[in-house]
Amino acid sequence: MKAVLLVVGKTVNKQFVDLIDDYVGRLKHYIGFELQVIPDLKNTKSLSEEQQKTMEGEQILKTIMPGDVLVLLDEHGKEFRSIEFSKWMDNKMQTVNKRLIFVIGGPYGFSDAVYDAAREKLSISKMTFSHQMIRLIFVEQLYRAMTIIKGEPYHHE
Amino acid sequence: MKAVLLVVGKTVNKQFVDLIDDYVGRLKHYIGFELQVIPDLKNTKSLSEEQQKTMEGEQILKTIMPGDVLVLLDEHGKEFRSIEFSKWMDNKMQTVNKRLIFVIGGPYGFSDAVYDAAREKLSISKMTFSHQMIRLIFVEQLYRAMTIIKGEPYHHE
Repeated sequence: MKAVLLVVGKTVNKQFVDLIDDYVGRLKHYIGFELQVIPDLKNTKSLSEEQQKTMEGEQILKTIMPGDVLVLLDEHGKEFRSIEFSKWMDNKMQTVNKRLIFVIGGPYGFSDAVYDAAREKLSISKMTFSHQMIRLIFVEQLYRAMTIIKGEPYHHE
Repeated sequence: MKAVLLVVGKTVNKQFVDLIDDYVGRLKHYIGFELQVIPDLKNTKSLSEEQQKTMEGEQILKTIMPGDVLVLLDEHGKEFRSIEFSKWMDNKMQTVNKRLIFVIGGPYGFSDAVYDAAREKLSISKMTFSHQMIRLIFVEQLYRAMTIIKGEPYHHE
């Protein structure tokens, strides 16, 4: 199985880019992993929130291939403790053959088509984070899950 | 009211320091705010987790003055949505006269004495984050709360 974090729009802040890259680099020692960026939509000022969600959704669904498992990071998703998330990941690594694709949506959330295509929804927190922050949080948490699976001393219960 | 984020141990990673400083700087336009660092305990290898928690707890309680309100960031605390947290902050700003002190504990959590002294517990997430990450997340979230209170466009519901 390969894991992908699919995001909409580039991270531009240098510090966030460096920190995210650091965790992505560490992750690759444990799992095939790719951070895939869908370019920001152009001219969004002329679009309604609904249109923007729909167009982003089309871009997201275009990247999905048969056999991929889509998991949305969504405020209405299931909240895990880190140790539970590591068990969930361990199970996925044993059952998913193609790609496990985590998706972080744009500022207005996901279109109905994306919700329909997704197998599961995860929530990191009830709080809303900036798109840069949620990327960083997620890669750190995925790295933490990998170290828990391997029994390494990064995580304290 | 003045808000304080009290943490144990310095953040050393340059990127985290820069990002945290950036939000601290932004916060100061809205509220008296200080990030206060309790130095790491020395020679912790000879201490049990319980002893370490107790000694950190003593350091934390030493910083508290009469009239201060202590709020622990704790996995067993109340989880808020960002908008709920902003309402909670707004209420605190109108009712607390001295300092509102948020505390992030060390790796093993808080001593009983600290729990006894605290008025409330907040939880950012069920997940465990690194001490650097949780500081960054908290200052961003406090900044977000301030922009919500002021009706500024940083936050999307």
